[in-house]
Amino acid sequence: MNLEIISIGDELLIGQTLNTNAHWIASEVDKVGFSVTRHTTVGDTKNEIIEALSLALKKNDVILITGGLGPTNDDLTMPVLNDFFGGKIIENKEVLQDIEKLVLSRGMEMNINNIRQALVPDICVPIRNKNGTAPGLWFDINNKIIVALPGVPFEMKAMLTDDVLPRLIGKFKLPIIIHRIVYTQGIPESKLAEVIAGWENNLPSTIKLAYLPSPGRVKLRLSSTGADRNKMSELIEIAVEELKMIIAPFIYSTEAGNIEEIIGKLLSDKKVTIATAESCTGGYISHLITSVSGSSDYYTGSVISYSNDIKVRELGVNSLDIEKYGAVSKQVVEQMAEGVLKKMNVDYSIAVSGIAGPTGGTDDKPVGTVWIAISSKLYGTQSKEYRFGKIRSVNIERTAVAALGMLRELLIK
Amino acid sequence: MNLEIISIGDELLIGQTLNTNAHWIASEVDKVGFSVTRHTTVGDTKNEIIEALSLALKKNDVILITGGLGPTNDDLTMPVLNDFFGGKIIENKEVLQDIEKLVLSRGMEMNINNIRQALVPDICVPIRNKNGTAPGLWFDINNKIIVALPGVPFEMKAMLTDDVLPRLIGKFKLPIIIHRIVYTQGIPESKLAEVIAGWENNLPSTIKLAYLPSPGRVKLRLSSTGADRNKMSELIEIAVEELKMIIAPFIYSTEAGNIEEIIGKLLSDKKVTIATAESCTGGYISHLITSVSGSSDYYTGSVISYSNDIKVRELGVNSLDIEKYGAVSKQVVEQMAEGVLKKMNVDYSIAVSGIAGPTGGTDDKPVGTVWIAISSKLYGTQSKEYRFGKIRSVNIERTAVAALGMLRELLIK
Repeated sequence: MNLEIISIGDELLIGQTLNTNAHWIASEVDKVGFSVTRHTTVGDTKNEIIEALSLALKKNDVILITGGLGPTNDDLTMPVLNDFFGGKIIENKEVLQDIEKLVLSRGMEMNINNIRQALVPDICVPIRNKNGTAPGLWFDINNKIIVALPGVPFEMKAMLTDDVLPRLIGKFKLPIIIHRIVYTQGIPESKLAEVIAGWENNLPSTIKLAYLPSPGRVKLRLSSTGADRNKMSELIEIAVEELKMIIAPFIYSTEAGNIEEIIGKLLSDKKVTIATAESCTGGYISHLITSVSGSSDYYTGSVISYSNDIKVRELGVNSLDIEKYGAVSKQVVEQMAEGVLKKMNVDYSIAVSGIAGPTGGTDDKPVGTVWIAISSKLYGTQSKEYRFGKIRSVNIERTAVAALGMLRELLIK
Repeated sequence: MNLEIISIGDELLIGQTLNTNAHWIASEVDKVGFSVTRHTTVGDTKNEIIEALSLALKKNDVILITGGLGPTNDDLTMPVLNDFFGGKIIENKEVLQDIEKLVLSRGMEMNINNIRQALVPDICVPIRNKNGTAPGLWFDINNKIIVALPGVPFEMKAMLTDDVLPRLIGKFKLPIIIHRIVYTQGIPESKLAEVIAGWENNLPSTIKLAYLPSPGRVKLRLSSTGADRNKMSELIEIAVEELKMIIAPFIYSTEAGNIEEIIGKLLSDKKVTIATAESCTGGYISHLITSVSGSSDYYTGSVISYSNDIKVRELGVNSLDIEKYGAVSKQVVEQMAEGVLKKMNVDYSIAVSGIAGPTGGTDDKPVGTVWIAISSKLYGTQSKEYRFGKIRSVNIERTAVAALGMLRELLIK
């Protein structure tokens, strides 16, 4: 079953707002077996919306639209869909009740914009929105389903998960899609492709391979579409096992999930705790760790020691070593790791110190130079120097990924 | 001049990778006066790429394509463009030299995939890639420009900024586009629309208004396209000044930039320093602060006190108060703010304690309950309770934005 995602909004079109909705929807509908054929983003303009819709109807069974359902004058999605499919706009009593309930629960009074949100085309089924005032719209036209949802991500997500997806799964007979990701680290894409070329050429024709590079990592995605889940799983499993025999040292996971989720599971399973001492990442590693629900079971806290003064006072780094070796050095980062291990009384610690850029580099230590240390009661302290690139945000991300990667290696020892 | 952005890659289509490229490109080309008409994302499939390209050529002067230029078998962009425009693939000596230089500088040896990257259509101008092995491709066909760039964000960004944009600006006579954003906080979209309806209806016809809601904030974007920059600026300026008279308390900025950049500028200008004590945000506030280049001038460090034990030991919170009032309380968060202010010896501090969810809520303090305190030597300590929603990531983001918003209010006093 083919599905297209249409995102509506000038703010998306001109790059004012990042389109996380299309990304999230794609991942959800792909999981249940729809083939996503295209994402299209258009502005808040009647003709653009109609053109995108007409194109999408030509080759899709389902069209999911987000955005432009708000109460304000720049929101055109509802009237345009109504005109396109030849409906009549009427006030829906149930929608109005939902809105009233929500508005009152927030301690506010109904206003004209709230009331306007209860106007929906008579040819669609409204979809309830527990988190906002704009209802979704479900059109079933000539056996094609067109659904419009609000652009506010958490409203849209709840509506898709609770309501739209179950309806879609009930309506269509979907094929099975299996994706398996092999996460690699420490080997560039071109080198990886060279090393696994023989394996790749011998993959079964039903398995499709994709290389997904991102800072410091390349994900390999194996995909298979069909009807026999067991058979498909088995073939993918064999392929992954063969791959492991070729590039084992570079694989950090073959399970779904980010590195912070993998780390979280490892720490949980071992019933051990972790703390971080961060300089150049400025809290990003602890943010990643705590973005995982349940992280309070293994994460206790961090010292973000941006200034040297705090490295000395809070982490017990020897100030003479900072003078002698610099803050970005093996000596300092190892003392940071040991300092925070002791201070937080944890089983493992991560410390990083580096030059994120764009300024602060020297000939000896250019922007992108980063030292990472891992300390543990069991294995002592180890550290490693990295040379990343020139871009601040990329350096922060690569440092965090590399640090969590080092920790993972120690945890699976 | 109309421009379409085409993103190629199965990983984008099925939601495995977030399309940050289209977002960034849109913002860059919009700034210099192109009208972005559409973003289209298609998979690594010849027919899909050709269909998107054919459609885009119908109504655009420029098409910017990213993705599918790598050295591996799933990368189709180069051969498809070559066939589509009827070229011949040849080895380009200059490109090969660039690749050799880059590969050797990284301490590696040339492999077959590196050499393959030097193959480009003879009917295009290759665009140098300083940060990777895949060159860009610039086609000038019947006065329409079609540019293909690699999908790796930092490679693509450098090529667009250094090479493609200057060429495009040189080739086309572009109109002037002015956008002005008014950042509001603490007022919901529907209420805001109600309050400013009169102002909105009286805007000059050349000014277009958009509401851009995100967790805790609504951005108002005023846009104007034309030829007379001074006149356009003046009209927008008048509109913004009128708006300020209506909703001043809710506006936290009328300058471009995120709240962390605005805070950074305020702290820099005042030559004061900041530290954070974070519980539920787990380092996200310090990550935002340090994502701004130059933040080491005003940011010294943080204590991420996830466990109560660390709140007591490191921040001097009274453990009896934690027992009596709970960790998510006025008493505890104020002590956290005062503790970190003293410990880090800074001028201002932010502390947050809350229930990010999805678990941990009670009847009294449901998921989404957050206390935020700001402390300073000059103004003492103040705190406020917030009730956000149920979604962990949204709660973390809203807490950070609200905390930085509270700090901003104090800084502009």
